Amino acid sequence: MKAILFFNPLKARKEDVQEQFFDIFHNNDIEILKIMPAGSALADNSLYQEADIFIVLGGDGTVLRVAELSAENSIPIVGINLGTLGFLTAYDSTEIEQAAKDIASNNLHYSDRFLLECYVGGKKLISLNDITVQKSQPIGTVDLEILIKGESVLNYAGDGVILSTPTGSTGYALSMGGPIIEPSLDLITINPLASHSLNIRPLVVSSNNYIEIIIHHIDAGNAYVTVDGDIVHRIEAGMAVVVSSSEKKVTLAQKNDYSFFKVLNNKLGFGRRII
Amino acid sequence: MKAILFFNPLKARKEDVQEQFFDIFHNNDIEILKIMPAGSALADNSLYQEADIFIVLGGDGTVLRVAELSAENSIPIVGINLGTLGFLTAYDSTEIEQAAKDIASNNLHYSDRFLLECYVGGKKLISLNDITVQKSQPIGTVDLEILIKGESVLNYAGDGVILSTPTGSTGYALSMGGPIIEPSLDLITINPLASHSLNIRPLVVSSNNYIEIIIHHIDAGNAYVTVDGDIVHRIEAGMAVVVSSSEKKVTLAQKNDYSFFKVLNNKLGFGRRII
Amino acid sequence: MKAILFFNPLKARKEDVQEQFFDIFHNNDIEILKIMPAGSALADNSLYQEADIFIVLGGDGTVLRVAELSAENSIPIVGINLGTLGFLTAYDSTEIEQAAKDIASNNLHYSDRFLLECYVGGKKLISLNDITVQKSQPIGTVDLEILIKGESVLNYAGDGVILSTPTGSTGYALSMGGPIIEPSLDLITINPLASHSLNIRPLVVSSNNYIEIIIHHIDAGNAYVTVDGDIVHRIEAGMAVVVSSSEKKVTLAQKNDYSFFKVLNNKLGFGRRII
Amino acid sequence: MKAILFFNPLKARKEDVQEQFFDIFHNNDIEILKIMPAGSALADNSLYQEADIFIVLGGDGTVLRVAELSAENSIPIVGINLGTLGFLTAYDSTEIEQAAKDIASNNLHYSDRFLLECYVGGKKLISLNDITVQKSQPIGTVDLEILIKGESVLNYAGDGVILSTPTGSTGYALSMGGPIIEPSLDLITINPLASHSLNIRPLVVSSNNYIEIIIHHIDAGNAYVTVDGDIVHRIEAGMAVVVSSSEKKVTLAQKNDYSFFKVLNNKLGFGRRII
Repeated sequence: MKAILFFNPLKARKEDVQEQFFDIFHNNDIEILKIMPAGSALADNSLYQEADIFIVLGGDGTVLRVAELSAENSIPIVGINLGTLGFLTAYDSTEIEQAAKDIASNNLHYSDRFLLECYVGGKKLISLNDITVQKSQPIGTVDLEILIKGESVLNYAGDGVILSTPTGSTGYALSMGGPIIEPSLDLITINPLASHSLNIRPLVVSSNNYIEIIIHHIDAGNAYVTVDGDIVHRIEAGMAVVVSSSEKKVTLAQKNDYSFFKVLNNKLGFGRRII
Repeated sequence: MKAILFFNPLKARKEDVQEQFFDIFHNNDIEILKIMPAGSALADNSLYQEADIFIVLGGDGTVLRVAELSAENSIPIVGINLGTLGFLTAYDSTEIEQAAKDIASNNLHYSDRFLLECYVGGKKLISLNDITVQKSQPIGTVDLEILIKGESVLNYAGDGVILSTPTGSTGYALSMGGPIIEPSLDLITINPLASHSLNIRPLVVSSNNYIEIIIHHIDAGNAYVTVDGDIVHRIEAGMAVVVSSSEKKVTLAQKNDYSFFKVLNNKLGFGRRII
Repeated sequence: MKAILFFNPLKARKEDVQEQFFDIFHNNDIEILKIMPAGSALADNSLYQEADIFIVLGGDGTVLRVAELSAENSIPIVGINLGTLGFLTAYDSTEIEQAAKDIASNNLHYSDRFLLECYVGGKKLISLNDITVQKSQPIGTVDLEILIKGESVLNYAGDGVILSTPTGSTGYALSMGGPIIEPSLDLITINPLASHSLNIRPLVVSSNNYIEIIIHHIDAGNAYVTVDGDIVHRIEAGMAVVVSSSEKKVTLAQKNDYSFFKVLNNKLGFGRRII
Repeated sequence: MKAILFFNPLKARKEDVQEQFFDIFHNNDIEILKIMPAGSALADNSLYQEADIFIVLGGDGTVLRVAELSAENSIPIVGINLGTLGFLTAYDSTEIEQAAKDIASNNLHYSDRFLLECYVGGKKLISLNDITVQKSQPIGTVDLEILIKGESVLNYAGDGVILSTPTGSTGYALSMGGPIIEPSLDLITINPLASHSLNIRPLVVSSNNYIEIIIHHIDAGNAYVTVDGDIVHRIEAGMAVVVSSSEKKVTLAQKNDYSFFKVLNNKLGFGRRII
């Protein structure tokens, strides 16, 4: 079993990761090909292709930083959360030994996750959670028009819009009142961000749509496009962002007894009777 | 082109339908095999198989009454609304001549709609819109537990639950705050009905689940199971309802320029800027 | 200290209440003038006037049954919940001795609660929590128009409407997505019940309004008016219900360290960080 | 009748206002004491005291810029919207002649509007609509704790919080799912901004509370405090903002047939049947 080890460079240094984790994996017959900061990339893709799995040390945010690389190279990700368990990570900080054993013996549950593609400013970006268009300032609104397959569907003034995958339905989309969506599904959710209107609801559309977001007016400042929690582009009135499905998927490894609904219950109290 | 004509027996009599509509269809080379009240059935299925299309005269509710027959026999439905246009009907009362021409020339847009199956009290029922379990009385609550593929996911006291298809997302599920879902999708939405808890949201799950609704307690009276707006069964505490996907689909015919989003805008003002 | 003891006749018999609780109160110098089932009334009001407090043994529902009597006679209520603590009860089943001591020494926190009045079918009813108009059947909708001070404000088809006091904001109104309102406030919340429209929100209006609910049409069956969880009247299309503020208040006694927000947190998990 | 004329300096120049509007008011016996850009102030307060009314030429935002001056000097505001009618303005651009006549003859409807006070960074600010604390960046979250009268009530990670007056309930608070509140009421609404939790709802509390917002952590950048749509302060983790009721009020003049509910219907489609 060969692995590349990714870590959150804001929370750890490469030497510490090497010192703390290398032996654990080595003792379980996992060969660590390389230790890399999440979000970085190699000039030459060939090393990725040698890996059987990407091991990510960090929270959900760190897994998101590795998602595109995982999708491009069709290598599954397993996340080990150094803090508390997240939605995307499989093991918490007390379970590293177990993680190593499960990875070595391939005692894992794999699920393929639907991805979005975002086209803006000549770039193409891949998203596992969500793409947002948001005003840059805490004041004023942006005037948005959203077209689905070329047809104008939503018009409103507000803070922006979130387009999310089923995986992203427990992220920022949840904060804006969106539904919770089983992550095995292939679909796109359009959630207005603070639209100043009553006649708008979260809208769930099939993955074979392409969605254009046109910025007609910004009261103050600019607007930003974010992908999985990173700012990727600054846009102005008159510009557009196009979002569609990706043909690729991320394969996410979890513990073998993984249950999405149990994670929902543990992390959000979803469906739990409090009294 | 051969058709069976269904009508809403609460709004019209068979003779009136015959008198008013027979000639219009006949003049357009549509042979009317039979005129039947929606919700009724023939002892012998063979006549259905001779039809190319089921023409339904009435509103969305009348279309729902014919959905099961349409699915069982794989005959598409086209709805002509004698009142204002609905979500399921294709033509309104001023467009009967055009409807006849479009049907005769097969100038129609067809879409396959996902269906739910409901098992309760030894019966199997098919739903195009939604299945609900509801308390029978305007007072008190029911204690529900909802299991997905055998796993307990939701526990709450409330008025009941709505399970809906994407087609049903613009019906009762909308009234309870559910998301709007493109009708081409195959998935199940679980919407609690007035759950007395904060930690519950609409839940969208894949079509390959089976869902059990267990009634643990009813404060007053009984509970009812409804399918597409009809009461189909009365249940008591300790009983369960099982819902899963149907292998069948209903093929719904619309005008050739049909747009789901345009209907949303016209009927609900969805996404429209008011000022 | 003189008290009348009310009990939930569905959960206990008078003799059992007498046997279990009389001595506890007597030993704490609380004279029990009478033991009565909640919801019953005496022909002669004079005994109520002799009481310093109404002690209610039962849950929130039992307190609601005594609220009108408490308001009419200006006698405060203290609730002892024989099950788990509610929003209105002050003590739970393990705290009866402490309750007796606190009542005897007047070591209590009193709050005056705003009440609604409902006029229907020649009757006037008083509500501490909420007044609803609801369809009688789990199918179909009612067409409602709601006027505020004679002005038509809301028009929709749905399951009905909830008008609630701030005290009732944690009851059925919460289940329908209403805001949580501090119970010291004097105001009326209008919450549509499953309105089939997007352009409606919970509406909070001042206590000096009168509100008319006109039923224009009922698809199936009748509609019911409920007050604090009891059916009080059956109405038909064409009839109206009028709701306004009451001049009276209910004085509710709680423990001296009572905090509304602590109850919210304990009973609903409100505002609590789960992870 | 003496008036001070305020205008939006982003939309007009003083000379244009003078030229366009001076004669209209003069011809109706309204003496214009001064023409000032909204948001500016005089060194000497005595001129304000000579005015009977502040006439504001501009939209709701321009009225908000004059609110504090109006409250401090107890001079009513009448807004003339040069675009489309807003929630706060009384006349639209086609009604200037009528506005002048109504002002001159005092044919107006006055309502006193509840105000909030915000203490941050040694400053005290007055708000007619809302006070927000928001993260400065479109990425990451802020960790907030909200205390009411010294008691910790809400703990969450999200984009921030909106505290609004009843007047502000149709502004940004509406965009975040808050209830609509009759503007004559004196109360404070606390609306979380995209809280990443399920167990939070809009909370309506009485005006005799003081509310502390403590920022425990900011993922990226800083946080901003805004008052009525203006950034007033930049804060960092560890800092707090305190909000309470103001003893002052703004007196807002509207047309004599003013109806809050009619404005809701016209501007938001609130309660209107679309079909």
